[in-house]
This record gives sequence, structure tokens and C-alpha cells, in this order.
Amino acid sequence: MPSISDKGNSMPQSPIRKLVPFAEDAKKRGVKVFHLNIGQPDIKTPQVALDAVKNNNIEVLSYARSEGSETYRNKLSEYYDKNGISVTANDIIATTGGSEALLFTIGSITDPGDEIIIPEPFYANYNGFSIASGVKVVPVISSIDDNFALPKIEDFEKLITPKTKAILICNPGNPTGYLYSKEEIQKLKEIVLKHDLFLIADEVYREFAYDGAEHHSILKEDGLDKNAIVIDSVSKRYSMCGARIGCIVSRNQEFVQTAIKFAQARLSPPTYALIASEAALDTPQSYFDDVIEEYVERRNTLISELEKIEGVKVAKPKGAFYCIAELPVENSEDFAQWILESFNHNNETVMVAPAGGFYSTKGEGKNQVRIAYVLNKEDLKRCVAILKAALEAYNK
Amino acid sequence: MPSISDKGNSMPQSPIRKLVPFAEDAKKRGVKVFHLNIGQPDIKTPQVALDAVKNNNIEVLSYARSEGSETYRNKLSEYYDKNGISVTANDIIATTGGSEALLFTIGSITDPGDEIIIPEPFYANYNGFSIASGVKVVPVISSIDDNFALPKIEDFEKLITPKTKAILICNPGNPTGYLYSKEEIQKLKEIVLKHDLFLIADEVYREFAYDGAEHHSILKEDGLDKNAIVIDSVSKRYSMCGARIGCIVSRNQEFVQTAIKFAQARLSPPTYALIASEAALDTPQSYFDDVIEEYVERRNTLISELEKIEGVKVAKPKGAFYCIAELPVENSEDFAQWILESFNHNNETVMVAPAGGFYSTKGEGKNQVRIAYVLNKEDLKRCVAILKAALEAYNK
Repeated sequence: MPSISDKGNSMPQSPIRKLVPFAEDAKKRGVKVFHLNIGQPDIKTPQVALDAVKNNNIEVLSYARSEGSETYRNKLSEYYDKNGISVTANDIIATTGGSEALLFTIGSITDPGDEIIIPEPFYANYNGFSIASGVKVVPVISSIDDNFALPKIEDFEKLITPKTKAILICNPGNPTGYLYSKEEIQKLKEIVLKHDLFLIADEVYREFAYDGAEHHSILKEDGLDKNAIVIDSVSKRYSMCGARIGCIVSRNQEFVQTAIKFAQARLSPPTYALIASEAALDTPQSYFDDVIEEYVERRNTLISELEKIEGVKVAKPKGAFYCIAELPVENSEDFAQWILESFNHNNETVMVAPAGGFYSTKGEGKNQVRIAYVLNKEDLKRCVAILKAALEAYNK
Repeated sequence: MPSISDKGNSMPQSPIRKLVPFAEDAKKRGVKVFHLNIGQPDIKTPQVALDAVKNNNIEVLSYARSEGSETYRNKLSEYYDKNGISVTANDIIATTGGSEALLFTIGSITDPGDEIIIPEPFYANYNGFSIASGVKVVPVISSIDDNFALPKIEDFEKLITPKTKAILICNPGNPTGYLYSKEEIQKLKEIVLKHDLFLIADEVYREFAYDGAEHHSILKEDGLDKNAIVIDSVSKRYSMCGARIGCIVSRNQEFVQTAIKFAQARLSPPTYALIASEAALDTPQSYFDDVIEEYVERRNTLISELEKIEGVKVAKPKGAFYCIAELPVENSEDFAQWILESFNHNNETVMVAPAGGFYSTKGEGKNQVRIAYVLNKEDLKRCVAILKAALEAYNK
């Protein structure tokens, strides 16, 4: 029998995948399961995007251009301009989700055995893309005690080897909700320039910056044109996760031309989704104002309720819609399974993501969970009440 | 300045990409360019698929399930059943185009440095996916003189090393149009069983089998369950290239579960396209009958016209909608550029794909071109007249 590759064997399972059957069983028993485990917002997609697809008059559903049409990329460059990021259509490649943007980026700048440094906890699929590309993730640990701020630059420096090709950050962060300051970005700039590395920033949550804080894109930094690569996506911005449209943005033309070769090999991004994404660029500002207001209220509700539970420590997120909470349990994976399998509170329970999957260092985050505040405030309150009751029962 | 990877540097340019600016210039000069260079059919997409998207009532464009919904995969399994291929929903993973199906497959069964044997000429992007995965394509040459039939099994056997993980075929073939017989598939079966290899068949042109010949899927062979992996796609079947929905089909559950981990990392295939693809499964048989009749007539027209040109040799295709023609020129790449740059026939010209890009062996196919018969018969006749005039002028 022919064998699976080492690569295939080491591809990680999604950290919540193991819990899915337990959630399904709970539902079969008539227990309502609140999903705090996924980044799928309940927010409505802008009508302008939905209408563009409904009103299309396609007769032959043809390939799009591999890097996205010029009109779309031009409109995208205007969007970046409005966000204080000056780029042209030629600096942009439309991709099939932020996922593919990252895959093309890793392929363009690394060979098997190369290394990418990533502050942990980090978005679990960075692991998957790295393994798929034969690349090693080198984690640098950040701490819940300072809300997962940027680790000390010395900590990065210690990890840099001749194999290091890039530092990858997510800003604001999934799963941490941390928003890097301008000063932190500048520290990263210094180190990548010093060591000739790429700086990759996953900025798909750009709009989700709270408390008056301004998102500082790596593309706003001078002198970083050869090093800076931004990964972006329409998924969260317009609550269009199912579109699967993202993009790569970089002023390094040698890199862009290389990434386009990867884009050509897969022919084109999905045409319907490009129509929706182009139309979404006309979403009125009021949409974002409402969404941000909603998320801030959700976050405030979630955090203040969580902080009332004895033994729970929470990192206060300044962006995105996740937070990491430390629970008074030894193993959050066991606990997450137990609340689905053996617990309910008035016939309701919650599904959370055990945070171990967001760490690359074995054993880290073992008593932490990631909570996505993608539900309305009333539901969030109920969820925290369920968690509180569950912790009491679990620790008895 | 940080450097591009070896992988990125060796990613091939699409074989026609170099010609695109010359075609654009010709258009600017007012010359009409017929595109025989691409696999984008002019055939209309089934109305049932287009309508499903226009009539959708999505409010939140959410992620689809990573491997595609159970309803879609169930309906797909019925489609395969109708085609004499007995598989269940669990044997199917929906992917973002056939491209991604191939990428997940290669990732699941190979590690960097491993080898895949492919009869050449082959679909150029197999090179791209292999390089992206750090895998080496080992070509085994097939000849225009026997219409690109399967090379002798001894020729495969000579190339098998401990690094060989799979044999990959495209059936019917892009760019050859060759349809493998049942006997040829059985020869491949024998050799992959003998050497414990995977047999990957790209069967995206399954429906496009002409002259009463029946397509023989590798999944119709007994005893090949652990070895057979089919790559499929809605792109050509329903003229839905822009949907970007494909799938992997295999009865090897260890392989399928591995490939699903790659699918999970990129979250989901595009949701709108899945709606179109599921609806497309209700396309009436009359649609295919009409399309096949049209392609057979186009092929007959193209081949008989081409054969009238002195010095032109054509492989007679039995499937798909491509043919390889040998031209009385030394370098088809130069010729393909010249007809765009320096030639026109009554203000019209044609764009063809130089076949060198479909060979992995340097220097092979240098006097060949691939012609896609994706235009109507009248246009095809004009195209061949243009080619004839061009060859006369070029060879003066």
C-alpha cells in the first residue's frame, strides 16, 4: 500500500475539529450549543455586495485574471489609500482567501527547511501552511500577563539563524485580540532590516481596532518597501468569510512577480466572489461604525462578565473579535470536551477553542481557551453564565 | 534586501504569459486576435447553475464546510454512480478547483525531493504545483506519431526509483486530447500495484470523449482502492471555469483524511461557487449531448483543415478540446510571437500556445503548438486559414 507523506502525517488537525463530534452529540441530545469557537461572525454581509452577485448577468462563468482584474485592484488601491497606505494596483495580487495569500507568500520566500518566526499564541493555520510548504515555525512566546504584547526584540534576535526568512505577525491578533502599537511595528522594522528578513503582517482585522486606537499597518513605515508583505482578506471586514477572496500587498516587485507565478498555476480566484468583493468596496462607513460599536459592546460585556468568575484571567483585547482566557482548570482541552459531553446548564452549553492549538511550544496555553465574541450580547452573557456554572461543577 | 526562494525562482511562467503583451499590442493596432491558446470554452454555463446563484438568499456569506457539505458530496456521489463509479460522500473532498485538488494530493503523498512520473506533453501547471511542493516531475515521453498514446510500461519502469510516489495522467489529455483505453489503464494499474505507487488521474474532461469511445476512470478498476486518486472539476464539464470548484475522489480513507487536513487549513471552498456547482448537477443530459456534438464538429473541422496545410502534422484527439500540431517551423515560440507581432491576415491573427511549455524535457515539442478548439466552426476555419497564410509568409 502506498504511504502518506511525512508532511501529510504532520499536518495538524484544526484545534476544534476533535470537539465537533461532541458538539453534534450534544445537539442530538437536545442541548443548545453556543459557538464561541469560530471566527464566523453573525454580522450581515453588506447588501451592496450581496446584490452585485444576485444581479450579475454572467452567461459563461469564465476564469478571472490570475492576479485579479485591474479594475478590482485599482479600487482596492483606493481603499488602501483611504487607510493611509499608498500602493498601486501593481502592488496587489487577489487571492483565494487570506489563506492562499499566505501560502503564495511562504512559497515565494522560503525553501524546505527554512524558518519563520511567529509570536505565539498564533492563528493555528499558520502551522498548516508552513508544514505544507516544508517550513519550520519558530515560536517566540508572548504572555497573557501583558495582553500578549510584542515579545522583547532580544527574544526574536536569539532565534534568528541563517535559515530565518521572515517574521510573521497578525495585527490585530487572532487569537489574542492584541493590537500592535506604532512603536512595536517600528521595533520589528528595525530587526527585519538589520537581518534582511521579510516582515509579513496578517492585517485581515485592520478595521477592528477599538478604544480610539489606530491600526498601524507595516506598509505605513518608510524604508520597508522591500521587506513588508501584507496579507489581507474580505472575510472579516465585510463578514464575507465564504467568499474566499484575499490579497497580497507589497511594494517589493520582485516578490510580487514571483507570487504571481504561484497565482497563475492555480489559474484564477473565484469569479462570483470577486464580483461581491469589488462591490463590497462601496460599503458605506456607517456599516463599519455600527459593526465596530457592536463588537466593542460585545467585548466589554464578555470581558467584564468573565472577570467576575473566580480564577479566570483574561487578556483585554484591543482589536479583532477574540480573547484568550485562562481558566482554573488543568487542561482546557479536557474541559472543552467535558462541557459538551457531560454538562449542560438549563439545557444549554458552549463550545470554546482550547488554546493549546494556538501555541507551537508543547504544553503552553494548556489552561487557556480562545473565545470568539461573534454572538450578540445577551447570548454572550448566557455563555459566560454557562462557563461559570461549568467551572464550578468541573472543579467539584 | 531579503531574497526570493529557489522555489519561487524556479516556478514556471505560464507558457502563454510571454505572448500576452504581444496579443495586447496587436489588439491596440486594430488586429482581431482569435484565442486558440486557452482552455476557456465559449459554451454557456447551464442555466440551472447560474439561476441558483442569482436566486440565493444569503444574508451572511459564511464559510462552507472544509470538505464541502454532505448534501453536495452526496449528490456528487450520485453523479459518479451514474458514470459507473461507485463512491460515497466520504470518498470526496470538495476543493477550490482541480488545481487545489492536485495541490492537496501532492502534499498528502509526497515530501520534498520525491518524484512523480508524468507522460509528457502534460498540463503545464503540473510543473507549478510540483515545484510549489518541492517535488520533482519525471517525464516519460509520448509521441505525436501515435496520437500521444500511453508510453510503453518499460519506459515507466526504467524511471521508478525509491523516491517515486505516483504516476499522474490526464485522461482525456490536456494538451494532447488523447483518451486512454481500458487496456492502457490496466497496464498502469499493474505497475502501480507492483511498485506500491499512487495512480493519480486528472479526469476533468471525463464527459469529453468522442467517436463513441467510453471514458474509463481509474476508479472503475478493482483492486486499486488504495492507489487510485481522481482529480476532478466543474470547470470544463459545465463551462464554469470561474467557479473554482473541483474535488478529490479516492477510496483510500487514510489518504482522504490526510487531504482533509490540508482542506481545513484553508478553511473552505468558495460558497457561491458551491451553490452553482451543486445546482449544476441537475443539468439535463441534453446539455451535454449538444456540447459534445458541437465539440466533435469543431474537432473535425479543425483537424481536417489543419491537415490540408503542407508540413503540418496533427495528433487526432479523441477527447477534451485540445490538439497538438507539429508545424513546419523550427521554433514554435518564435512563430507564435511573430504571428502576433508582425503578421495579420485581413487584419486578423491567432494566438496559439507553444507546446514547449507542456514538456518537461528541454527541447521537446519545440516545433509543436497546442490548439484549443474553444471557438465556433466558422472562426476555427478562419483561424486555420490565418495559420496557413502565416506559415507561408513566415517560411519565405
